[in-house]
Amino acid sequence: MSIDSRMESHLQSQRQRHLDELLGLLRIPSISALSIHKEDVAIAAAFLAEALTAAGMENVKVFPTEGHPVVYGDYLHAPGKPTVLVYGHYDVQPVDPLNLWDNGPFEPSIVNNKIFARGASDDKGPTYLHIKALETILQTNGSLPVNVKFCIEGEEEIGSPHLEPFIDTHRDLLKADVLLISDTTIIGPNQPAICYGLRGLCSLEVHVQAAKSDLHSGLFGGAVPNALHAMTELLASLHDHEGKVLVEGFYEDVAPLTPEEREELAKLPQDDQAYMQSLGLNELVGEPGFTTIERTTARPTLELNGVYGGFQGEGSKTVIPAEAHAKITCRLVNNQDPQKILDQIETHLKSHEPKGVTVTITRHDHAKPFIADYHQPAIQTAVDAYQFAYDVEPHFMRMGGSIPIVEAFDRLLNLPVVLMGFSLPDENFHAPNEHFALDNFDKGLRALVYYYTHLERV
Amino acid sequence: MSIDSRMESHLQSQRQRHLDELLGLLRIPSISALSIHKEDVAIAAAFLAEALTAAGMENVKVFPTEGHPVVYGDYLHAPGKPTVLVYGHYDVQPVDPLNLWDNGPFEPSIVNNKIFARGASDDKGPTYLHIKALETILQTNGSLPVNVKFCIEGEEEIGSPHLEPFIDTHRDLLKADVLLISDTTIIGPNQPAICYGLRGLCSLEVHVQAAKSDLHSGLFGGAVPNALHAMTELLASLHDHEGKVLVEGFYEDVAPLTPEEREELAKLPQDDQAYMQSLGLNELVGEPGFTTIERTTARPTLELNGVYGGFQGEGSKTVIPAEAHAKITCRLVNNQDPQKILDQIETHLKSHEPKGVTVTITRHDHAKPFIADYHQPAIQTAVDAYQFAYDVEPHFMRMGGSIPIVEAFDRLLNLPVVLMGFSLPDENFHAPNEHFALDNFDKGLRALVYYYTHLERV
Repeated sequence: MSIDSRMESHLQSQRQRHLDELLGLLRIPSISALSIHKEDVAIAAAFLAEALTAAGMENVKVFPTEGHPVVYGDYLHAPGKPTVLVYGHYDVQPVDPLNLWDNGPFEPSIVNNKIFARGASDDKGPTYLHIKALETILQTNGSLPVNVKFCIEGEEEIGSPHLEPFIDTHRDLLKADVLLISDTTIIGPNQPAICYGLRGLCSLEVHVQAAKSDLHSGLFGGAVPNALHAMTELLASLHDHEGKVLVEGFYEDVAPLTPEEREELAKLPQDDQAYMQSLGLNELVGEPGFTTIERTTARPTLELNGVYGGFQGEGSKTVIPAEAHAKITCRLVNNQDPQKILDQIETHLKSHEPKGVTVTITRHDHAKPFIADYHQPAIQTAVDAYQFAYDVEPHFMRMGGSIPIVEAFDRLLNLPVVLMGFSLPDENFHAPNEHFALDNFDKGLRALVYYYTHLERV
Repeated sequence: MSIDSRMESHLQSQRQRHLDELLGLLRIPSISALSIHKEDVAIAAAFLAEALTAAGMENVKVFPTEGHPVVYGDYLHAPGKPTVLVYGHYDVQPVDPLNLWDNGPFEPSIVNNKIFARGASDDKGPTYLHIKALETILQTNGSLPVNVKFCIEGEEEIGSPHLEPFIDTHRDLLKADVLLISDTTIIGPNQPAICYGLRGLCSLEVHVQAAKSDLHSGLFGGAVPNALHAMTELLASLHDHEGKVLVEGFYEDVAPLTPEEREELAKLPQDDQAYMQSLGLNELVGEPGFTTIERTTARPTLELNGVYGGFQGEGSKTVIPAEAHAKITCRLVNNQDPQKILDQIETHLKSHEPKGVTVTITRHDHAKPFIADYHQPAIQTAVDAYQFAYDVEPHFMRMGGSIPIVEAFDRLLNLPVVLMGFSLPDENFHAPNEHFALDNFDKGLRALVYYYTHLERV
């Protein structure tokens, strides 16, 4: 169980260059959610296209979409061998609150053997490993023992609104034998894991309108509706004190965990005390009757991501706010349907509309949950690759996050999906001080070189 | 019942100049709550000091305080006659949301016989009327038939934190026979009213802290506390569906309305249908068992003025917020004590602290409620002045707003207080498109000339 020694040497001699190039990508503020960064997202796409070309990929092209572009490139000179479709994303989450970052989110720095930058771990770093692993094989060997296609998008963090139509109209171009994605987490610094399930997602905004404008609390206070009173009453109706979702029907399509799977998940290392301590918490809060791992990977959630209304400035302002807004996302598990869940939430909110105000709802992104059979050969090669690079057997796990497009790839291209991640769960994705461990940068490259040089069957 | 005809002519001939000078004052963005406007507040103080001098006041001085300055000026050449202390404020509320203003808040414009600007009605306009009324008498007559002292502050909109110590250390300077304030509303375009009661105020901020930083809703969602879930649960516990405050003991010191006073208040014109329509509401919301006037002037309230936490930008962000914040103010009535009410709210919030989070409280401004006997002679002269200027008998009413310093003046200087306002209740104080009716600008000047030339007894 090894890789070609020339490839080992190449990885060592080129390490600083590989790192420097990744830092270059991390300097680009490709925040897909904010229209002010549209040009930066395009710059990141162009950067990746150049990197694919430099690595030896052919037919490299930046495909425009109605949103942000898709970067494509391929190597198709291994007749009779499997074709691997590599998916990743080069867009990143917004960076606020900016004041909580120790360093600029787009000024990457390496501190304590970690690369700090927005996107380091989610998902520019892991995506970049594929390019450098294939470049290493090609530069050492002159050819690849598999066929490869890259499909790297710029809208993952906003729910991939244009990737599904892109896949649909490019089924031939993207046709492959296996889909390989590095956008999931492993369990700990030296404990890799293969993810076989992802939660789905749905997202909405709630708007409460009371009077036609803000009112003076002295003159009107006591007789008129306050948009924030209504909003807090409405939002508080969504959960019980323990965190169970009170939307009618919310749990009705959830496939119950079997005793066997609960046993499997119970084997995963999880120390609630250490977990709480690392998060600065004295107590965990969640649905009664489930473990932390079950709650975060195999049970659905409804989270308030943002609430705002009225005065937020310095000091006080004696105002009765006319408007209030809330942003909500749900994580879904098999077999919940995002649209049905949105319908149920909308019904709940409308039926709980507080006195004197109007509640309106805007629907956003949605993604179906995904689950795979982990006995297939393409996943078994990933088990071997992890075993080689980390010298330890990987676990099988489900992930609480969503990769909205996985279910669409699965449905449209009908191919096995391998989720082979290199990020650690505490690397602050979507939060200040996101980072990526150098140890997984190095082991990830070796694992991927192994994977691409050992994939025989899918 | 009249004023000197030379004064009538003077008011007419000088009208445009009087207006232009007021617009000059309204151009100064003297927002006391925002430290970035500290210099503007000082500029407004200097503007007023010049206006007092130009009007014929003596000993004009801008007194620095630890916050914003107090402007003083006097005329003390009417021996044996009453001394009127005039209180007003030249600071204004913040202006956000700025996009809802039809014109810049500090670019005053006259449209449809209304002066539009932040502070036009609260309280630069009404305060300025006193200066111009006294100037009119002095320029026409050569002397004033009363003694006058001005005390104009720059911190009313932030709870007057430094005026009470100022009054306390300047009791001799401010010694007077009656306090006259124009910072209340009348009932309608041609229905003046004398206010004999003001609500008190207390103010606090609530902070909820969950994890030490924002968390990814996919990786952690389901097992960790969400600061916004906790905050909405906490805030929703403060009221029942009808708007009654659920804080234990909140109503226990409220002096019940007597049947006689309820009868008196019922005589005030109030059309709930028109009121709702003017505010863009389909329904009123408030404490059961009380009329709109009772709810807004003689009953206490607890209002959420601002709530915020998590992501507020464009699009969605799948984050579990670590922090949430709320700004709360209460309007209080006799005999509620602001500190006791703050204690009760704090006890409520701490005892309802949701699982997994820490709730902390910051206390801000507070002012005791005020109530006066409206049979005193100084108020009777105000009745006559309104009757003269508006040709209609004024009502007696209580006001729902707070003038935090009235109770302090009352306590420290022990003098009758006359609240003689010229603003209309729908002039958008504290909200976008604040304005002041030209009709009340004109009638206010005539009423004040009458008052200052007819005040014999207090």
